[in-house]
Amino acid sequence: MTDLIPVYFDCDTGIDDTLALIYLLGRPNVEVVGIGTVSGNVDAATAARNTLDLLALAGRQEVPVAVGAHDYLTEAYAGGVPHIHGRNGVGDVVLARGGEPVDGDAADLLIALSKQYEGALQIIAVGPMTNLAVALDRDPELAGRIARVTIMGGAALAPGNLSPAAEANIGHDPEASAAVFDAAWPVTMVGLDVTMHHRLTDEQREQLAASDGELQRTIAAILDTYFNFYDGILGVRECTLHDPLAVAVATGDAIPSLAPVVKVQVETGSGPARGATVADLRGMYRGHPPVDGARHTVVLTIDDQFGPQLLDSLLAYPAP
Amino acid sequence: MTDLIPVYFDCDTGIDDTLALIYLLGRPNVEVVGIGTVSGNVDAATAARNTLDLLALAGRQEVPVAVGAHDYLTEAYAGGVPHIHGRNGVGDVVLARGGEPVDGDAADLLIALSKQYEGALQIIAVGPMTNLAVALDRDPELAGRIARVTIMGGAALAPGNLSPAAEANIGHDPEASAAVFDAAWPVTMVGLDVTMHHRLTDEQREQLAASDGELQRTIAAILDTYFNFYDGILGVRECTLHDPLAVAVATGDAIPSLAPVVKVQVETGSGPARGATVADLRGMYRGHPPVDGARHTVVLTIDDQFGPQLLDSLLAYPAP
Repeated sequence: MTDLIPVYFDCDTGIDDTLALIYLLGRPNVEVVGIGTVSGNVDAATAARNTLDLLALAGRQEVPVAVGAHDYLTEAYAGGVPHIHGRNGVGDVVLARGGEPVDGDAADLLIALSKQYEGALQIIAVGPMTNLAVALDRDPELAGRIARVTIMGGAALAPGNLSPAAEANIGHDPEASAAVFDAAWPVTMVGLDVTMHHRLTDEQREQLAASDGELQRTIAAILDTYFNFYDGILGVRECTLHDPLAVAVATGDAIPSLAPVVKVQVETGSGPARGATVADLRGMYRGHPPVDGARHTVVLTIDDQFGPQLLDSLLAYPAP
Repeated sequence: MTDLIPVYFDCDTGIDDTLALIYLLGRPNVEVVGIGTVSGNVDAATAARNTLDLLALAGRQEVPVAVGAHDYLTEAYAGGVPHIHGRNGVGDVVLARGGEPVDGDAADLLIALSKQYEGALQIIAVGPMTNLAVALDRDPELAGRIARVTIMGGAALAPGNLSPAAEANIGHDPEASAAVFDAAWPVTMVGLDVTMHHRLTDEQREQLAASDGELQRTIAAILDTYFNFYDGILGVRECTLHDPLAVAVATGDAIPSLAPVVKVQVETGSGPARGATVADLRGMYRGHPPVDGARHTVVLTIDDQFGPQLLDSLLAYPAP
């Protein structure tokens, strides 16, 4: 067990969070030591319910799940996106009920795990950054105990999606995101620059639907709602792989072909760029000189399509 | 003469402004009816001096030149960039003295020309946007009399240069730039997305230096300083063609291969995205639906290298 990477997973489950969770649970080099939830695709309590039910379906009830922040640092949670993730966050599929969340909130769980796995714990955060910011505020020593933070979030050279400038996970809580990038840990940003280019096709979804496994068939059913939404966006029945791609980068299963280490700041003003991730990519013009404050890795390209690898991993996930 | 496009040119001359000015004067379909200057590469008064001297060298002393804003709307001019454009703005080449500026400032000249050429006047602005904003403030009807504004400025999907988020012409006066994009005229934005990719090579500069024409040889001498600077940026002795490329787009001589019509807003807050041009390019994800407030053309790609065309035009410019 000593070679396994201990991972705290922060999510707003969510359909692509579902893919990310099952993919993460299937990684042979990772031990998921705790999960926190945050409002985003759905509210934090519903995200915990979905996560617990999925863990039961995957035979992993022992993984502790803590409910995290319902509201963002400066704004109240305004409700989810039922047209994307379904009313319940998992495409309106009714899952068998799993276990119950642990006592304490997600920030408490993260801080406790950071002490238990000091220097080794990795954070993978695929929802708004609120829990991480709350934990940083509650324990100023936290950042020094974390090996790396990998997030699904932001857009360096790509358009936003929540607004012209802001990707949704960053844009929902810019103040929390700024705290995460300002903290003394290295962040790997897996944003719209890459996640929009990696897809699961309807043919791949049908392979899940045709599986003998209940987990695989359930995932296929959950994906239906997501595909309906993305059909209107992409003009083809497939979906982007935001959250699972961030997991794959964190676990070393997706290798970026271009990922400069630069300074990243989050715009927290009230103007049109609120929620923008301002990455100092002027090195693209200047032959990459050192930049003051450069600490974060911004993933700009991943050449190999991640969909086939994700599908193989989901299909291979063992029945409990 | 009735088929000629009347152009008001706003500049901070400047080495690439020099290229842009001579290129513009050589366009057969354009009549340059007035020029305003603004602080940027050099202060506004020096920019006017350089412009008047270049007009004399080009045999075009009749074009009126007005000195415009020395300071920006909310910030004082902090001095030029002698390491890029030389101490005098034209690579420290001493030009024969031309005429004198007209009475009134650049905004006055622009407003007067907008009435004289109502509905037909095009603005090409290759410096900070201060004069345009002053004119819009002074005459609220101005925008309705202008056919089109083409600017060298901004960065939609490319890094900034003044800061990680801001291109210099926008970033020096974000408030003025916001006024320009908010006004009821169509703006074509020729920013770092394209201008960094179009170059004049040292071989091309040497062709100017070998010319019989005094104008051509003077331009070659002026370019020397600019090439020295860009050698350190680009790692090769050539220069980018920011300002002349904007002119070529305005005159129809450079044809964009991708230039969506979208909403553009300028970030004027004090955060890290100050001076960012926030273009709503989410249509790239969404199959280009109509976007509220879409009026501006953001040039993202121009396939044909503009350098050879620029060189030919400069070499062909007739001796006065």
